Amino acid sequence: MMIEDEVPNERVTMDGVQIAKNITEGLKTEIERLQNRFSTTSKPKLLCINVGNRIESRTYTSNKQKACEKIGGLLEIINFEETATYEQIAQTIEQANKDDSVNGILVQLPLPKSLNECSILDLISEEKDVDGLTSINIGRLTTKGRSTTFYPCAPLAAVLLLKNYGIEISGKHAVVIGRSNLVGIPLLMMLQKENATVTLCHTYTHNLREFTRNADIIAVAVGKPGFLKEDMVKEGCTVIDFGINVVPDNSEKGFHLTGDVDYNSVSQTANYISPVPGGVGPMTVAILLSNLVLSWKQTLRL
Amino acid sequence: MMIEDEVPNERVTMDGVQIAKNITEGLKTEIERLQNRFSTTSKPKLLCINVGNRIESRTYTSNKQKACEKIGGLLEIINFEETATYEQIAQTIEQANKDDSVNGILVQLPLPKSLNECSILDLISEEKDVDGLTSINIGRLTTKGRSTTFYPCAPLAAVLLLKNYGIEISGKHAVVIGRSNLVGIPLLMMLQKENATVTLCHTYTHNLREFTRNADIIAVAVGKPGFLKEDMVKEGCTVIDFGINVVPDNSEKGFHLTGDVDYNSVSQTANYISPVPGGVGPMTVAILLSNLVLSWKQTLRL
Repeated sequence: MMIEDEVPNERVTMDGVQIAKNITEGLKTEIERLQNRFSTTSKPKLLCINVGNRIESRTYTSNKQKACEKIGGLLEIINFEETATYEQIAQTIEQANKDDSVNGILVQLPLPKSLNECSILDLISEEKDVDGLTSINIGRLTTKGRSTTFYPCAPLAAVLLLKNYGIEISGKHAVVIGRSNLVGIPLLMMLQKENATVTLCHTYTHNLREFTRNADIIAVAVGKPGFLKEDMVKEGCTVIDFGINVVPDNSEKGFHLTGDVDYNSVSQTANYISPVPGGVGPMTVAILLSNLVLSWKQTLRL
Repeated sequence: MMIEDEVPNERVTMDGVQIAKNITEGLKTEIERLQNRFSTTSKPKLLCINVGNRIESRTYTSNKQKACEKIGGLLEIINFEETATYEQIAQTIEQANKDDSVNGILVQLPLPKSLNECSILDLISEEKDVDGLTSINIGRLTTKGRSTTFYPCAPLAAVLLLKNYGIEISGKHAVVIGRSNLVGIPLLMMLQKENATVTLCHTYTHNLREFTRNADIIAVAVGKPGFLKEDMVKEGCTVIDFGINVVPDNSEKGFHLTGDVDYNSVSQTANYISPVPGGVGPMTVAILLSNLVLSWKQTLRL
């Protein structure tokens, strides 16, 4: 006879695609509702600055454009040559800061090495920083008592994924591996604001396994396929995978995408796991659009 | 016969008073040197805004004034009534931002509850934020690739204390207890920038002892006398105590100051421990002055 305690834990693959779809459908409805209410043809408009010819950047930008148009918004792409100067990009950002028709400004990262990424990002006005990556937005996010204008998209995707699946964050031990400005650092801060005990691990961490095996929630953003393995996680934990690694294969495309988590093995031990593709990735674009609509709404209310 | 391995570990009480003295003496010399070099009578000037009649605040402000004058700087105190409005304080800060003779602006915390502390702090221009507590300075501190204008004084005191005693931070596990904007949060970020694996513990942390017993470095800023006890730390660790707790006693003064660490017991197990008083406290004022002189030097070079 099977007693209740013996029922094996449910293993759940978290569906970021469905949540992203719910978010974007909600945004579409919201835009239409507000256009009717304010009798306006105004649309949320995102200005996307792309520098150089990286194929991935062009693809990401174009994906954002499609998604933005799908909800009834506008996305304008400004392409700069690889050799563009700081001054040229700065001028464009400063114009867009002043342009009332622009609700969000995004600089597609990474920038060519000749440009100082942080200095360029910090030119974006706080109110149009829909990526949430300027110093001032990160400072607001990091401290207590300040309201955050925009949360960075990828870390917010993780927090929403956890909340959507009813996974408790408060009082849990969350281990974040990787300390990028885009993911690791802001995620650490957001998880502590949700009252998790947080640990940040990175390349200098000794005995990483000792940290991850004690974690209730593990977030990995290191850019290494299959980095997190089964023997590094404890039974019943939750794993969020931020990796987007291109692995060559014999398929027609010649490659496939894989995360930083050894999905097949870890999914046998973790109760909840976010897959790649289909986890935080699709949600990140949905949240960017959500930030854009938030910014647009502020304008409508003026 | 005693072999080398059996030599008991040295127990060291870290002397913040001596380091503070070294810093301030260095600053005094530096100011004189620059005044001679630039043939100027200009002095580093700190504007200190004090609101209300809290005795501690008045004492802290007056201590800073004495210390500032000792190195050859100026500290001007502007006192506001408890009932001062946001607008009144904002006007003073904005004037001081524009005043070339003012090199640093400091708002003595805590402010009366009727005032929004963060909004007031964020009025201080980044270049004069010698306390390092504005959103933009915290954002710069938190992320990679940005230069920090001013580090918050108390956390920098801790990092300097560790460095002064040759305590390795890189690759070590540092546990920070308490997540205030002034201490816990910026210290966490500074320790990870020094390549420590960092854990932030707080009131929602379960099994705090499990975290602290695994820590190489423990920093406590919780405002509870004797909070960290011997059974919570591992042999040979380093403990930094940020507590400043007033404990009533039968002495002439009627009270004494004590930290958040049960010093007598923890000092038997930790290799390095910062005492209260005499640890990070005196260093904090020295570092504030060091930030002020840094700001003044920028002005001289214009």
